[in-house]
Amino acid sequence: MTNPRGPRAFRPSRVFMGSLSHGEDLLAGLTSICRQEEIRSGRIEGLGAVSKANLGFYDQDRRAYHSIELASPLEILSLKGNISLKEGEPFVHAHLTLSDASGRAFGGHLALGTVVFAFEYVIEAWEGPVLERRFDETTGLFLWDGGGGL
Amino acid sequence: MTNPRGPRAFRPSRVFMGSLSHGEDLLAGLTSICRQEEIRSGRIEGLGAVSKANLGFYDQDRRAYHSIELASPLEILSLKGNISLKEGEPFVHAHLTLSDASGRAFGGHLALGTVVFAFEYVIEAWEGPVLERRFDETTGLFLWDGGGGL
Amino acid sequence: MTNPRGPRAFRPSRVFMGSLSHGEDLLAGLTSICRQEEIRSGRIEGLGAVSKANLGFYDQDRRAYHSIELASPLEILSLKGNISLKEGEPFVHAHLTLSDASGRAFGGHLALGTVVFAFEYVIEAWEGPVLERRFDETTGLFLWDGGGGL
Repeated sequence: MTNPRGPRAFRPSRVFMGSLSHGEDLLAGLTSICRQEEIRSGRIEGLGAVSKANLGFYDQDRRAYHSIELASPLEILSLKGNISLKEGEPFVHAHLTLSDASGRAFGGHLALGTVVFAFEYVIEAWEGPVLERRFDETTGLFLWDGGGGL
Repeated sequence: MTNPRGPRAFRPSRVFMGSLSHGEDLLAGLTSICRQEEIRSGRIEGLGAVSKANLGFYDQDRRAYHSIELASPLEILSLKGNISLKEGEPFVHAHLTLSDASGRAFGGHLALGTVVFAFEYVIEAWEGPVLERRFDETTGLFLWDGGGGL
Repeated sequence: MTNPRGPRAFRPSRVFMGSLSHGEDLLAGLTSICRQEEIRSGRIEGLGAVSKANLGFYDQDRRAYHSIELASPLEILSLKGNISLKEGEPFVHAHLTLSDASGRAFGGHLALGTVVFAFEYVIEAWEGPVLERRFDETTGLFLWDGGGGL
């Protein structure tokens, strides 16, 4: 990759599969694994169920997250996330898709306060360049510096 | 991995991409591929459409699945699943996200009776330790023994 | 693989992680990366947010897509797609799951006209056989010739 604004190429190195503990905080649990295994770049996914969820929705006009609390048991249809660095530490950015007893789907940005009923994850760790999150003036979010576009 | 309760590390070995046949049962079709290819550990994903869906929602209080039947054509926004062993055989655990003609999303645990209109899958097979599903007293589900938490 | 109708096996070769630019067309941006990197087979995923979305729903009876326009900011809970060839060029087939400010989820087939607010992707490129999309009489879709079933 000679274009510093182009997509960054990584090499797959390790794959982890496992489950979080019943009652554990979903985001804290995943972050803990990534820090313990020293994963600086990678992807994360999973499925399972929560006893309650705390999600964020980013208000693009006001440039702030607001919280969506779902205080009942829900299936996790999909957790999708990535791992990069923020302030030098492994950082998990993940979005969650959930469903209720009638099959309706909900979702948002995974925040602390989402409690695991059962959760099975796959985490892939890569070797390669470092992607570090920095404040982005355009969106108000912490994005990868120089990683955008072609 | 010296911690028997920690995440299990695998090595990627094979990737399969292909499609199921029109009219095939989605869960049975995926399970058949995993057994034919002797995949004991891995991940599975896909997108496409169904002519009808049969989903499960796990009632965490009553500790039983109930069925959600969606008897109309729907897009498959995401199938996300994993492959491990149950009673010594490759077993697919997958959750499905669907959408209707108005764009509303639905989903749940993939059960038999979900019929493929068109489906394109990616299956990744790994080498490594065996994760076997066993009955878990806490949740009433068949989970990976010793795979939880840190 | 001796069965020409069976699943096709690939070898992982490259992984890309990066972000699209604010204001970019989501499908055009991903297609551009796949063509520039000459990715003929692979998978694609991502999360982020859009300022508006243009989705398709396939009417299985009328054998035609109709459009679903969502003209407001939404979270991208999941983009899931694959990369193969169509008319000799790398072609992205992707489905999108979105959520609104109340947490309700929506989705459909990703079409041109979906505008990136922020988007972080993972693209995996594989080496192996060529999967080429061709018109399928049964469904009216462009599917992989000979890739179906077992």
